Amino acid sequence: MTTAAVIGGGVIGGGWVARFLLNGWDVQVYDPDPEAERKIGEVLANARRSLPGLSDQAMPAEGKLRFCETMEDAVMPAQWVIESVPERLELKRKVYRQIQDHEGASVPICSSTSGFKPSELADGAKHPESIMVLHPFNPVYLLPLVEVVGHPGTEPGFIEDAKEMLTGLGMYPLVVRKEIDAHIADRFLEAVWREALWLVKDGIATTEEIDDAIRYGFGIRWAQMGLFETYRVAGGEAGMKHFMAQFGPALKWPWTKLMDVPDFTDELVDLIASQSDAQSGAYSIRELERIRDNNLVAMMRALKAQDWGAGAVLNAVDATRKVEPEDFSQPIVTVARAVPLDWTDYNGHMNEARYLQAFGDATDRFMEIIGCDAEYIASGGSYFTAETHIRHLDEVHAGARIEVRTQVLLGEGKKMHLFHEMYEGERLLATGEHMLIHVSLETRKASVPATHIEAKLAAIAAEHANLPSPEGAGAAVRAAK
Amino acid sequence: MTTAAVIGGGVIGGGWVARFLLNGWDVQVYDPDPEAERKIGEVLANARRSLPGLSDQAMPAEGKLRFCETMEDAVMPAQWVIESVPERLELKRKVYRQIQDHEGASVPICSSTSGFKPSELADGAKHPESIMVLHPFNPVYLLPLVEVVGHPGTEPGFIEDAKEMLTGLGMYPLVVRKEIDAHIADRFLEAVWREALWLVKDGIATTEEIDDAIRYGFGIRWAQMGLFETYRVAGGEAGMKHFMAQFGPALKWPWTKLMDVPDFTDELVDLIASQSDAQSGAYSIRELERIRDNNLVAMMRALKAQDWGAGAVLNAVDATRKVEPEDFSQPIVTVARAVPLDWTDYNGHMNEARYLQAFGDATDRFMEIIGCDAEYIASGGSYFTAETHIRHLDEVHAGARIEVRTQVLLGEGKKMHLFHEMYEGERLLATGEHMLIHVSLETRKASVPATHIEAKLAAIAAEHANLPSPEGAGAAVRAAK
Repeated sequence: MTTAAVIGGGVIGGGWVARFLLNGWDVQVYDPDPEAERKIGEVLANARRSLPGLSDQAMPAEGKLRFCETMEDAVMPAQWVIESVPERLELKRKVYRQIQDHEGASVPICSSTSGFKPSELADGAKHPESIMVLHPFNPVYLLPLVEVVGHPGTEPGFIEDAKEMLTGLGMYPLVVRKEIDAHIADRFLEAVWREALWLVKDGIATTEEIDDAIRYGFGIRWAQMGLFETYRVAGGEAGMKHFMAQFGPALKWPWTKLMDVPDFTDELVDLIASQSDAQSGAYSIRELERIRDNNLVAMMRALKAQDWGAGAVLNAVDATRKVEPEDFSQPIVTVARAVPLDWTDYNGHMNEARYLQAFGDATDRFMEIIGCDAEYIASGGSYFTAETHIRHLDEVHAGARIEVRTQVLLGEGKKMHLFHEMYEGERLLATGEHMLIHVSLETRKASVPATHIEAKLAAIAAEHANLPSPEGAGAAVRAAK
Repeated sequence: MTTAAVIGGGVIGGGWVARFLLNGWDVQVYDPDPEAERKIGEVLANARRSLPGLSDQAMPAEGKLRFCETMEDAVMPAQWVIESVPERLELKRKVYRQIQDHEGASVPICSSTSGFKPSELADGAKHPESIMVLHPFNPVYLLPLVEVVGHPGTEPGFIEDAKEMLTGLGMYPLVVRKEIDAHIADRFLEAVWREALWLVKDGIATTEEIDDAIRYGFGIRWAQMGLFETYRVAGGEAGMKHFMAQFGPALKWPWTKLMDVPDFTDELVDLIASQSDAQSGAYSIRELERIRDNNLVAMMRALKAQDWGAGAVLNAVDATRKVEPEDFSQPIVTVARAVPLDWTDYNGHMNEARYLQAFGDATDRFMEIIGCDAEYIASGGSYFTAETHIRHLDEVHAGARIEVRTQVLLGEGKKMHLFHEMYEGERLLATGEHMLIHVSLETRKASVPATHIEAKLAAIAAEHANLPSPEGAGAAVRAAK
């Protein structure tokens, strides 16, 4: 069993809590704020509706969450301590003193700070070697990036352990080579924020116009390739050197306001707040959070299908969650997953076509089980679906855990006749009957499968021949009810 | 008929050519580069495989592309001139002189420049009132953003016309209130680029690490909400003022390098080029372009399903492309579209589940036609699919134009029995037979539809009763071939 202690349960701390819990960790929270439990509850509710469906495999059972009366109580059984208290250096150092007085150097203490370098945090600590930065990005339960930053005295083993721990949480650890103010990403955010404040103050653009300039243009590019890869492509056939030659000199032009920072006068704050109201005021913060999470899940799952960027990170975690079936005397579990947000309509019901997507995934998984895997397909053989019959028996909602159980009705020669049943718990949601034909991918015509596949399929078919014929098999569409 | 003249056919000019052509405009190109035709051909090939499927409606027939020997020849019949020549002020001014000597002030000349203000471009021109900036983003055929910038003397009617023209091309015109160096978006890009160069030069991060810091974190956020809306959400319940109070003071910290620009020494150029090779060198530029376009299409279509950001822009254009059926004596065209990239596997074949998605879209469209539209559904009634039978008869590829024709087999009381046929041209790809039941969305139980829907459905059913029963209707799944 693995336990994390989270000290400070604001937006970031709460996000860490959700990320750990939903990946099967127990979490102990210490936060003196009397509202902490309610606030973390809100973050958890958001995470529960969005995170599990990001995966195409079943996630581990949720861990246990405990709110602790004291910091000592919270850190006691923890393998990792996450510190997400407000950005005040003295407060952070005090937390570390309290923990290290109690725990010694055995537990790594990881700060979520964006503003302090780890050497500043560790300065004067009893055990500086246990202190490092793990800087995540909001919403922590969805975005994969974590900047991992040690100071020169950080125990290197802790950095390695942190990488492994974060990867297990479905995150992407980016180890920062040298500590530097604001790490990497926030330096870019600061540069953009500073320039954006000037544009608003000078009346060049409103907050909404600035957001549109980002999200209708380079923002979409940056969700999948970053700055350099995007420019490499823009350089065209001549490549990166050509691009640099073209774009480099432009940097001599004094475009941005750079060093100057506009004063945070009441006037500027009011201007921005009122423009922001005009832009987004039609939605509450809670609604905006859900809209944002729907968008992020939908886009990250889109990248997943392309096996690229954040999507490739998600696929790598899924691969570790696959379960190999052992008992072939019963229908085989070929899909076990949560219904993702992007499979549902605005009311949260699973869309018609996604039933076939789940059944198609079940077929793909069954093919893998009989040896018709990526390697075999690359060698030129596969199964194509010729015919499908779906009965929609009951509804299912976003976030529900569904399972598809697959029974072989026939498996001989070129033919594979499968019957899938989709359940939420023991509630039957839908059935899918599918006739597949083995084909040569070269001729696109029917052909016999490789011997090892034919044999494995026949063996399962023989075991399943002892099962009763499932209700609804062999039926045509007819007037129901 | 509408014609655009594109002067300069590089990456940006070629992108404009593709955007116009695929939206049904005729395009006349002038570019003295002997390679121009080949280069534009490459851009067009990318656009043809990615743009048409972004739409859920059939796009207009492609316009005619003509390469012209002289600039005068190119601009002659054009309603719009797009100038995308290299970023040299004198060259651009020379182009305008040549055009205006010939055409006068009647044709708006729109520069794609990112580096010059429209007043600089128009300075000394014969007809400065016709000169403005339309600054698009690469790839121009996919990204919606165009910064529309006039100088104080630009004819206001041309700005209004440009907004309308761009909206018709599926783009998002962002009118910049006051001209300023680099307009809006590129000021942010410059700030980030400058800081990124320092990080590479100082050995803090490689090009790949910087890209990862962007695309695994804030890049995904910025694809759907921009800077201010993201921070509004991050501020939580306390809102934008609270966020500003928290984040504002951090700007006093000297995080970024700001004013200083690293010298573009050979050493720095080599360092960046070699890091970029290590990061992306496994793919050719052409492969990276296709990967990028696949990712952009998949994410923009994901946003489309959420009706948000760039996805909402796409939906608005689709709404203008819908065709109302007039003849009910034959099967009704309920889907006419290109197969989008995100519906296909890595070999470009349409995925199994997307056949049902197209049939589901056909059903939705048919419901709309009989009056079961968004408004009716909001009032509490709808049709649910009870049963589906699909026959996969032939394959289809990304980019192919498909059509679904829908025949009513039965339409009375609560029941609606539909038969969809999917075609590419006259090649039958698949059939879908569907039994739907009208339900009350409150009780989730079968119920009779509103009278006007029942009547419209019955009328179409009566006309379709004269059609022969389609092949494959009423069949169960059976061993094929």
